[in-house]
Amino acid sequence: MTNSPNEVYSITMRMRVKRQPGMLGQVSAAIGAVGGIIGAVDIVESLPGQTVRDITVSASSAEHEEQIAAAVRAVPDVTLINVSDRTFLLHLGGKIEINSKHPIANRADLSMAYTPGVARVCMAIYEDPEKVYNLTIKRNCIAVVSDGTAVLGLGDIGPRAAMPVMEGKAALFKEFGGVDAFPICLNTKDPDEIVRTVKAIAPGLAGINLEDISAPRCFEIEDRLKRELDIPVFHDDQHGTAVVVLAALINALKVVGKRIDEIRVVVAGVGAAGTACSKILKNAGVRHMIGVDRLGAIYQGRPGGDIGKTKWYAENTNFDHVKGTLQDVLAGADLFLGVASAGLVQPQWLKTMNKDPIVFALANPTPEVMPDDAAPYVAVMATGRSDYPNQINNVLCFPGIFRGAIDCRATDINEEMNLAAAHAIASAIPDQDIHADYIVPSVFNRNIAPLVAKAVAEAARRTGVARKES
Amino acid sequence: MTNSPNEVYSITMRMRVKRQPGMLGQVSAAIGAVGGIIGAVDIVESLPGQTVRDITVSASSAEHEEQIAAAVRAVPDVTLINVSDRTFLLHLGGKIEINSKHPIANRADLSMAYTPGVARVCMAIYEDPEKVYNLTIKRNCIAVVSDGTAVLGLGDIGPRAAMPVMEGKAALFKEFGGVDAFPICLNTKDPDEIVRTVKAIAPGLAGINLEDISAPRCFEIEDRLKRELDIPVFHDDQHGTAVVVLAALINALKVVGKRIDEIRVVVAGVGAAGTACSKILKNAGVRHMIGVDRLGAIYQGRPGGDIGKTKWYAENTNFDHVKGTLQDVLAGADLFLGVASAGLVQPQWLKTMNKDPIVFALANPTPEVMPDDAAPYVAVMATGRSDYPNQINNVLCFPGIFRGAIDCRATDINEEMNLAAAHAIASAIPDQDIHADYIVPSVFNRNIAPLVAKAVAEAARRTGVARKES
Repeated sequence: MTNSPNEVYSITMRMRVKRQPGMLGQVSAAIGAVGGIIGAVDIVESLPGQTVRDITVSASSAEHEEQIAAAVRAVPDVTLINVSDRTFLLHLGGKIEINSKHPIANRADLSMAYTPGVARVCMAIYEDPEKVYNLTIKRNCIAVVSDGTAVLGLGDIGPRAAMPVMEGKAALFKEFGGVDAFPICLNTKDPDEIVRTVKAIAPGLAGINLEDISAPRCFEIEDRLKRELDIPVFHDDQHGTAVVVLAALINALKVVGKRIDEIRVVVAGVGAAGTACSKILKNAGVRHMIGVDRLGAIYQGRPGGDIGKTKWYAENTNFDHVKGTLQDVLAGADLFLGVASAGLVQPQWLKTMNKDPIVFALANPTPEVMPDDAAPYVAVMATGRSDYPNQINNVLCFPGIFRGAIDCRATDINEEMNLAAAHAIASAIPDQDIHADYIVPSVFNRNIAPLVAKAVAEAARRTGVARKES
Repeated sequence: MTNSPNEVYSITMRMRVKRQPGMLGQVSAAIGAVGGIIGAVDIVESLPGQTVRDITVSASSAEHEEQIAAAVRAVPDVTLINVSDRTFLLHLGGKIEINSKHPIANRADLSMAYTPGVARVCMAIYEDPEKVYNLTIKRNCIAVVSDGTAVLGLGDIGPRAAMPVMEGKAALFKEFGGVDAFPICLNTKDPDEIVRTVKAIAPGLAGINLEDISAPRCFEIEDRLKRELDIPVFHDDQHGTAVVVLAALINALKVVGKRIDEIRVVVAGVGAAGTACSKILKNAGVRHMIGVDRLGAIYQGRPGGDIGKTKWYAENTNFDHVKGTLQDVLAGADLFLGVASAGLVQPQWLKTMNKDPIVFALANPTPEVMPDDAAPYVAVMATGRSDYPNQINNVLCFPGIFRGAIDCRATDINEEMNLAAAHAIASAIPDQDIHADYIVPSVFNRNIAPLVAKAVAEAARRTGVARKES
């Protein structure tokens, strides 16, 4: 896949340019000739006869960045002083920081925040353990925990290389949900050890967001932690995706005028995210669903395949025992949900779907079918990409769902809370504004997290997992 | 021990007061009559015929706070609306927060900080693991880890009740050392489990500050973690105290004009802190030292006692096999170091010490001998208290020692680094300013941490544990 130039590959070039008419034009032309897109142009310093400028340019790849720098170097009377990649600059030294809420500027501050005053606060918690929620960061602090085994689409890159993602997640938790989140990347892949470690560090935390842990280990780890801890545990790769998919479907069905209990759903990819999506769809009312893996449609009693991964589908979907390939079962389907791999679906297959089909093609970065190719055949389309309409983005879910769970001191994030979150996200777009290219609200809509939080806390109270009234 | 009124027990009382001459005087008199000391008096709101005021008052205990509130309630034409304890207010919701360093306000920010841009940063670390120090919070982030078994003088109050101390420590790390520190209180007391947990969470951390873990478990835990991790591990209760004690001694010896290799030292209390202090004193040149426990002076071959705790003293001190009680061995000593319990030393015993004796009585909150009682007999006195001169306070050490260790990416904090820290702290007071009441610099002296950091990083480089040149 070739990208168009974008901010992921943007560079800021600092250069010394001879002060004479037409120089900036020559530099711009050189950058443009190799396909760079110029953003900001700043003057850093005026020297005798020379100007130091910062020029920010978007490229389409790391190699393209180098081409652009080379093109600038080749312009006469220009000296390239430094090239900085803006993405790397942003990550330099990490993306989050831990700050004291109050200054400790004098003896009085110190005696209250630390010894001897802190002893009174400790004893208050010792005497009434619930006070840990009032008097410590446990009120608002979670951990983002990964073992680095399934990081983005990069696979098992290890705990150190996973840190930038977990820090980014922590930054988003604060930015969108007001949740303090600390990234913890584990030096173990053993499920027992992961469960033990998370349980050991839990006393000061209000929740655990599991992240980028590979299947099937992620199921066991999440299940055990949910059972054994009294704080919410949420594997975002599964449930965050599922919540946003359901939200998108709720609004897509309004566009096409269909009912959730009548649509026929085909799910390709029955890994962690696919299974979680399928479960929430079923819990939201979908009655006709077929899961598809490499061997085709999954049905009870099918020989071969990964029984562990297909078991839930065999028992809970495809009650008509439909057999066949993905292409076969797509015929007559109302929703295709892809959580599988790039290019899995040929566009013309979509012609056989039911009238006004919905396609959610979530493989990243390249979907099961590209929106441009699918456009002639589908009524509503969503992907995981930000450069097409209707991005299925977990950022819509996790800040608000934890905000809600923490606010009511929930002991769990249960399926009712997930369903409530999905409906809240869907509701952020007023019915009259919903259309085929706008079924998912913008991740920058600051109303989303509060809406989700409120709905999630209500669901927690309704289902008896909240420990605190509003 | 009765305190005088202080900020640890200060309250802010919000009250509605009838607007007529003399009312504030009546309230002040009522507070004064029960011994409260008035601080700030603020007007919150003017109502018809009434004024709402906040009056902040220092008390000497929680009971005293209640007495003061009752006295105000008894004043005619005054309605006490609310009483808030300032120490508890300061701890409400915890004392630290986690923030994003950069705003995530638009799509460009999001694509660089999180997907898809973050994948480039992950892969850069995957390809060169050392880059984790440049591109993540590992550059500047440590954990403050406790199991809550030996919190301040409060004992085994558990991980939840320990949180306020660890958060306070984290706040101080940032305030004085610029170090990001996250508090982790463990739901286990098992040394194996603690070692396993800390090792598991270490990949994203630049160091581990162990805190308030009871002896002898703290020795094993620290030793194993130092061996098995490639980042610095430092048990502050031991080494932080030891460093500041040595710093104080260096300056005290200047006051009395004695040499460290000639003084006779008696140490009472051979627990974690006492042993660490004794070791650093020996490493700094002390040749004559006697450790004392409940059975009296420790010497090689002494029957009884806790062999585990006295072993080091039997092998490394008291080469003359001096026997006797604490009172006996104090005769002729130049330094008494108490890391034991309140009131252990009778003031008149100090008369038998050598000329110009030095007494460090560090039991908290009540020293082995009170400064007022010891004053007639000693040349220099230090305690752990802030209300007497020469407070031995670990805040002088831990922010700077981690700052230095992190700056040079040390793999360890070794004894040479501890010694360097002690000398740096001592050097913060110019020789001409040192006197009996000023051997320890103020914890609010902002030069201390940078001084310590520089000396510690130099010692790390000298001893081959630094991974980064300046």
